[in-house]
Amino acid sequence: MAIYIPFSAKTYTDRRNTLISKMSGGQVLLIANDESSINFADNWNPYRQDSTLLYYGALSMPDIAIVMDVDEGTTKLFADDVSIDMVIWTGPQPSMKELGAQVGITEVYPYADLKKHLRSEVHHLPPYRASQELTLRALLDKNKLSHSVELIKAVNSQRSIKTEEEVNELQKAVTLSKGMHAEVIKHIKPGLYEYELVAIASKFAHDHNARWSFPPILTKNGQTLHNHYHGHKIEAGDLVLVDGGIEIASGYCGDITRTTPASGSFTPEQQEIYDLVHLMYKEGAKVSKAGKRYLDVHLHTAKILVDGLKDIGLMRGDTEAAVKEGAHAMFFQHGLGHVMGLDVHDMENFGEQHIGYSDTVQKSTQFGLKSLRLGKELEAGNVITIEPGIYFIPELIDKFEAEGRFKDFINYEILNKKRNLGGIRIEDDFLVTADGVETVSYTHLTLPTKRIV
Amino acid sequence: MAIYIPFSAKTYTDRRNTLISKMSGGQVLLIANDESSINFADNWNPYRQDSTLLYYGALSMPDIAIVMDVDEGTTKLFADDVSIDMVIWTGPQPSMKELGAQVGITEVYPYADLKKHLRSEVHHLPPYRASQELTLRALLDKNKLSHSVELIKAVNSQRSIKTEEEVNELQKAVTLSKGMHAEVIKHIKPGLYEYELVAIASKFAHDHNARWSFPPILTKNGQTLHNHYHGHKIEAGDLVLVDGGIEIASGYCGDITRTTPASGSFTPEQQEIYDLVHLMYKEGAKVSKAGKRYLDVHLHTAKILVDGLKDIGLMRGDTEAAVKEGAHAMFFQHGLGHVMGLDVHDMENFGEQHIGYSDTVQKSTQFGLKSLRLGKELEAGNVITIEPGIYFIPELIDKFEAEGRFKDFINYEILNKKRNLGGIRIEDDFLVTADGVETVSYTHLTLPTKRIV
Repeated sequence: MAIYIPFSAKTYTDRRNTLISKMSGGQVLLIANDESSINFADNWNPYRQDSTLLYYGALSMPDIAIVMDVDEGTTKLFADDVSIDMVIWTGPQPSMKELGAQVGITEVYPYADLKKHLRSEVHHLPPYRASQELTLRALLDKNKLSHSVELIKAVNSQRSIKTEEEVNELQKAVTLSKGMHAEVIKHIKPGLYEYELVAIASKFAHDHNARWSFPPILTKNGQTLHNHYHGHKIEAGDLVLVDGGIEIASGYCGDITRTTPASGSFTPEQQEIYDLVHLMYKEGAKVSKAGKRYLDVHLHTAKILVDGLKDIGLMRGDTEAAVKEGAHAMFFQHGLGHVMGLDVHDMENFGEQHIGYSDTVQKSTQFGLKSLRLGKELEAGNVITIEPGIYFIPELIDKFEAEGRFKDFINYEILNKKRNLGGIRIEDDFLVTADGVETVSYTHLTLPTKRIV
Repeated sequence: MAIYIPFSAKTYTDRRNTLISKMSGGQVLLIANDESSINFADNWNPYRQDSTLLYYGALSMPDIAIVMDVDEGTTKLFADDVSIDMVIWTGPQPSMKELGAQVGITEVYPYADLKKHLRSEVHHLPPYRASQELTLRALLDKNKLSHSVELIKAVNSQRSIKTEEEVNELQKAVTLSKGMHAEVIKHIKPGLYEYELVAIASKFAHDHNARWSFPPILTKNGQTLHNHYHGHKIEAGDLVLVDGGIEIASGYCGDITRTTPASGSFTPEQQEIYDLVHLMYKEGAKVSKAGKRYLDVHLHTAKILVDGLKDIGLMRGDTEAAVKEGAHAMFFQHGLGHVMGLDVHDMENFGEQHIGYSDTVQKSTQFGLKSLRLGKELEAGNVITIEPGIYFIPELIDKFEAEGRFKDFINYEILNKKRNLGGIRIEDDFLVTADGVETVSYTHLTLPTKRIV
């Protein structure tokens, strides 16, 4: 175990003081993520700290908690030093007093004292692991938890606007993520199994002493949106969709998608779809900027999709009307993008309404649009993905055709001829500015024409 | 998602019928492991099913449960088919009816019906994930769970004796595990970082469409027994300890340790310790057989350790007395081995007393011996590890010396000169037979002399 603290003690102290100043009273409780058991208690997945604890206190270790006392204006760390019995298993460790000082916390108490330091008004975030649920229930003596919307809003107002030092970390993560894609793309060829490409992605991450932001989607069946099965053999003519990214030691993530023709070049049929996705991507980036509702950026790219598919003969009718009724979601079932940071879907556990929407922009229930994670006005300092895609999902085509759905907008006869075209997505990560968006990476992929954006 | 079912429907039906015949009454409830969230609800670690559910029903997927009704002699599967909304994300899936048939279960009900099918006598195993705790509490309407020792004993009596088809799977897993070690060892050299070797181990696992049995211990500081930090640069003269294994699609695991000199050959000081560990390993394998208490095998190797260290001058006094007082645990702090199977520490979540000990062999509380996971009589069909080690832990040396502990048995003056020697372990996996043990692998590592056993 080695504890990596990316920023200065002052950065963490400032962040906590800002949060304390935003809260009306009580105590803010941040509990550490526990070790996550695989198939028995002591066989653990790689450890990942909770991102909000990382943001305010950096320490990536289980069995600790941070309490910011809004009434007193203080921060306390609850954590135990390693015992000699544990030193045998984990090696010598710095004291919690020393580690606390590195993140600007001088008050350090034994973890067992945590409960008695808590008063009646304790603000906590919504749990996303069962272990958090159990820990919070025990600490707060409650069978039913009630998370703090005030805390969600305060944390979101800080974490959603990236500082220069955060953007720097994101640039490193995104640059490595692009490197991983370049390495995988270089090896794509017919005859390989998908898992052999996963092996290359995995080696790249470990070779940089980093990890994946999430288990990658790497598949010749890109039309299955969250495809983590990697057992297929890649054949000539296949498209290989890779959606993956690297998380660096500070916890910041990259999230990139590329779709590559296994044979080295697209068929004309694939090419026209790829070009349309690329156009959606470029148009999405062009119209995004601070003040713009991301819902409108999404709908803008949906219209480009409909116009493009009308040219190919797959769609017909009035573009505005098609998008209003959601007919484009036959091909584009997910949202255009999401916020990013310490989580690849930043703060998604806070609830999408709080993170991606606002009092004036509510989430839709329409098929397709309901999967848009980000709808509200962009702000300078947001880091977002732009990731349009076009997918041919045979089960969905059959279902909608059988139901007579969107029959004024979709030419099922032509669509059925292309039903096995698969899925194409292009995704990059962008920093929102007052004037537009900037790609968050030091380098661009330089790869064979038509393979990448 | 693709569901892999390694054995015939008859195998699973037979296993369940055997279990039902061993139980006195009531229902046996096996719940699936859920998806395990990393840093937000939908970012998941690679899925791993509970091993007991794999053993009796094979289906590697969340949100299912198997109920064996001991009173009725029937088995029911509770699981839902994939909805069209989910098909977009996961692709088309076989129906649960079809999957149930493949493991010999014809009664399939919606998951929501599970609770109403449970009667008052429900046997379940001890939870090892917080999510299992929450699920069982909700299903059984209890705030405090009480697992079934009767069920633990019945399951253990089946799972601990490996059938020929299980040994075959274990052989595949162990052979791949050896292959992974061979690949890593080939690349060990000064100048590399530990994580670059982890990258090679990771690529090997994915290249075989497999996964690690557990995140490997791969370190130049082998004296830290569970060292998952990989940030050190390997220098000439370092020892590199790698403890890792492969889990194959059926869920069966390998678990191997090798310790390799980074420069290609041991120093004379390292060599004498390595040879002693090797002797402990060979002697452990020589005396292990059905009917032998593994506690006695452990103590046998401890005596070999003491005799060997007496020859080097690190220990002194009466060997029997030294082992009785636990002085050898200054160097050998863990147990000689453990049972293996679908879990790398097989059924460890059932409780060590039930799996590794018996009514006549109780676990010791002595330092060192308390970490022995397996003490009871071996049985033909057990698969076990034999993994002696010798470690020089500076913090432990300082503590014991300051306390005057074992001063009649340990020569602290010589020990302090060797305090930075590090750690050496050798581990292989064995099938217990009436006459002895057999190595569970198709191939042996063939590598430079002195590098491996």
